[in-house]
Amino acid sequence: MGFFQVVSQLNSGEARCGVISTAHGKIDTPVFMPVGTRGSVKTLWQQQLEEMDASIILGNTYHLYLRPGHQLIERVGGGLHGFISWDRPILTDSGGFQVFSLSKLNKMSEEGVTFQSHIDGSYHLFTPELSMEIQRALGSDIVMCFDECPPLPAKKEQLRESMDLTLRWAKRCREFSLRDEQHLFGIIQGGLELDLRQECLEQLRELDFAGYSLGGLSVGEKNEEMVEFCRNFVPRMDRDKPRYLMGVGTPLDILNGVATGIDMFDCVLPTRNARNGQFITSHGPLNIKKERFKEDTLPPDPNCQCAVCQRYTRSYIRHLTNVGEYLAAELASYHNLFFYLDMMRKVRTAIHNDTFDDYHQTFYNAYNSNQWS
Amino acid sequence: MGFFQVVSQLNSGEARCGVISTAHGKIDTPVFMPVGTRGSVKTLWQQQLEEMDASIILGNTYHLYLRPGHQLIERVGGGLHGFISWDRPILTDSGGFQVFSLSKLNKMSEEGVTFQSHIDGSYHLFTPELSMEIQRALGSDIVMCFDECPPLPAKKEQLRESMDLTLRWAKRCREFSLRDEQHLFGIIQGGLELDLRQECLEQLRELDFAGYSLGGLSVGEKNEEMVEFCRNFVPRMDRDKPRYLMGVGTPLDILNGVATGIDMFDCVLPTRNARNGQFITSHGPLNIKKERFKEDTLPPDPNCQCAVCQRYTRSYIRHLTNVGEYLAAELASYHNLFFYLDMMRKVRTAIHNDTFDDYHQTFYNAYNSNQWS
Repeated sequence: MGFFQVVSQLNSGEARCGVISTAHGKIDTPVFMPVGTRGSVKTLWQQQLEEMDASIILGNTYHLYLRPGHQLIERVGGGLHGFISWDRPILTDSGGFQVFSLSKLNKMSEEGVTFQSHIDGSYHLFTPELSMEIQRALGSDIVMCFDECPPLPAKKEQLRESMDLTLRWAKRCREFSLRDEQHLFGIIQGGLELDLRQECLEQLRELDFAGYSLGGLSVGEKNEEMVEFCRNFVPRMDRDKPRYLMGVGTPLDILNGVATGIDMFDCVLPTRNARNGQFITSHGPLNIKKERFKEDTLPPDPNCQCAVCQRYTRSYIRHLTNVGEYLAAELASYHNLFFYLDMMRKVRTAIHNDTFDDYHQTFYNAYNSNQWS
Repeated sequence: MGFFQVVSQLNSGEARCGVISTAHGKIDTPVFMPVGTRGSVKTLWQQQLEEMDASIILGNTYHLYLRPGHQLIERVGGGLHGFISWDRPILTDSGGFQVFSLSKLNKMSEEGVTFQSHIDGSYHLFTPELSMEIQRALGSDIVMCFDECPPLPAKKEQLRESMDLTLRWAKRCREFSLRDEQHLFGIIQGGLELDLRQECLEQLRELDFAGYSLGGLSVGEKNEEMVEFCRNFVPRMDRDKPRYLMGVGTPLDILNGVATGIDMFDCVLPTRNARNGQFITSHGPLNIKKERFKEDTLPPDPNCQCAVCQRYTRSYIRHLTNVGEYLAAELASYHNLFFYLDMMRKVRTAIHNDTFDDYHQTFYNAYNSNQWS
C-alpha cells in the first residue's frame, strides 16, 4: 500500500475518502488536523487528543525553531514525536506563513527571508534549505515546502512573481534530503487566478510531491471566492495524491472544501475561539459569555457526545469564563476540537454511504439556524 | 455510624486514621483537600480530580458569593455540587479569611465586617448569619464558622478581643439553621497562646460542633512555632471529632500536623506553585524553569506514578513553561495534587501499619535532600 489511497468517492460529486499511511500510523481522510503550534494543542493533554481520536496534529516550524529550537528537539526527543510524547502522525508547516505574518521587518531575496523574531527581535534568515533542515530535525511525517504567500487581493503580476519564486524554492526543497519516512508536499500558489494556479500545479507535478496543498487562501479574499475557486480548481489536482487546503476553516468552509474534493484541513479556529468563550455547536457558534446563558442548565451543545457536553452546563462554563478560570478555555477547546473531529467522522461515513450531499445540507441548515447564538 | 470515627491510632504517637461520613460519601483521614476557590480546582477537570482520588474539595464562600453569587448557584445547581458537577464531599470556608486578606477597606463591628469587593469595589456587609446563609445555599457538606483572624505576631490583648468576638460569632453561626445534612465546624483562635486557645476550645465545646479547626496559623508566625504549638495543643482537642488545620501547608507541614493528631488539611500551595513552574517531588520542590532541566529527559519526579510523570519529560515541560503554554500549568497542577493525595494515602497506610514515624523520617530525609532543585 502506497502513501495515499482513495477508498471511496461520491457517485455524483468530488468528495472522497482516503487513507494516508505514515510511519506513525494511518490517517483517514477527509481529516481535520488540530494545531499544536509550539508543541502543544493549546490547553489539551496529549491523552485528551487521543481520547477524541485525533489522528494527526500539526506543529509550527517557525515557533519551534525559535523556541525551544529544532536541534534541542532532535537531541532530546529524536524529533517532535518523542519530544512532546505523541506517537501518531505529525505534519509541520514550512514556517513561511509565520515569517511573513508574525515576524517584524522581514526582507525577501532569492535566497530566502530575513526576519526579526517576534519574541526577542533577533535576526534570522529562513531559506528553503533551513526550513527543510528544521523539519527533518522535527521528524514530521508530512513536511511542507517553504513558500511565499502574498496577502489577497493582489495584482496578477505580483502573484506571478510570488508563484515563480515559490516554484524555485519548491525545487530547492525537493532537492533537500529528508528522512526516508518523511513525505514532502508541494504548495500551489497563484491567488484566485486559475491559469496561474494551473501553471503552478503543472510545474510542481514535475517535481513529483507526495501531496499538494493550496496555499494563499483564506487570507483576505471573500469566502464565496474561495469556494468558487476550489470548485473550479480542486478537481484538476492529482486524484491519487492528498489535497490539503491550508488554514481552513469554519465547519462550513470545511464541508465546502470536502465537497470539492479536499482531503486535509487545519485551522486554529476551534482552539483560538475557545479561548474567547466561543463554542462551535451543531446550531452555530455560541458565545458562552452572553447573559442569556447565566442560568442555562443545558450543555454547550445538547447534540454533542463529548466529555464536556456530557457533564457541564452552560451556566457553570459561563461562570468559569467570566472569572477567567483556566478550566473555561480547557472545556471549550476540548469541545470544539471534538466537534470538528466528530464532524469529520460523520463526513467520512456519509461519503462511504454516498449520502454526503444530504449530510452537508442538513448540517448547513442546523448550523445556520444559529438558534443558540 | 456517626459523622466521624477513628479507625486506627499509632501505638506511640498522636497520628490517627479516621472516616468522615457525609451525605456525599466518605472521607478517609488524614485527608488533604484540594482548593477550588471559584468552583474549579485551578486548571483541573473534575474527571481528573476523581481519577487521582480526591475525596473532598474546598470552595471559597467569599469568591462564590461575589461571583456568580450563592443564590444563582442554588437556583441553577441546587447548591455547589450540582453547579460544578462534583458529587463527592465539599467543604466551604466562611469567607472570613478572604474578607480580611483580599478585600479593600474592611471595617469591623460586632455585627460583622463591611468590605469592598476586590473585583468591582462594591460594598458588602459579611455577618455570621450571611456566611451561614451563603454556605447553606452552597449546600457544602462541611461548613465553617465565620471568624476573625488577626495576623501574627499580635499582642495578647488583641488576640483575646479577637477570640472573644470569634466566640460570639460562633454562637450566632451555631444558632443558624443549616441544611439537615450539613456539618458545622468551630474555629479555634488565640494565636500561639495556649491558654487562650484552651479557653476558646472549651467555650466552643459548649456549642457542640461537628469538628474543630485551628485558625490563625500559618499567617506570619515561624514554622517551628506552629509545629511546637500543634504538638502541645492538638492532643487536647476532642478525640472523637475531626481536627482541621486550616490553610496548611507544605508536605512537611502536613506530616508534622499528622504527627500531632490533625485529620484535615487544605492549601493552595500545590496548585498556586504549579502555575509558577514548581513541581513538588519526593526530593523537594523542583523549579522546572531552571536551565539544568533544558535537556533533561527524566519525568518531573521519577518516583511518581501520576499520568504526568508516566508520560512527560522535564525538558518538554520546561519548554511549555517558558513559552507560557496552558498545558504547563495543567501538568504541574495535576502532578502536585496527585503527589499530595498519594502522600496522604501512604500516610494512612503507615498509620494503619504503625510505621508512620519511619515513613515520616524517610520522607523528610528524601524531601530535604533537594537533589533535583
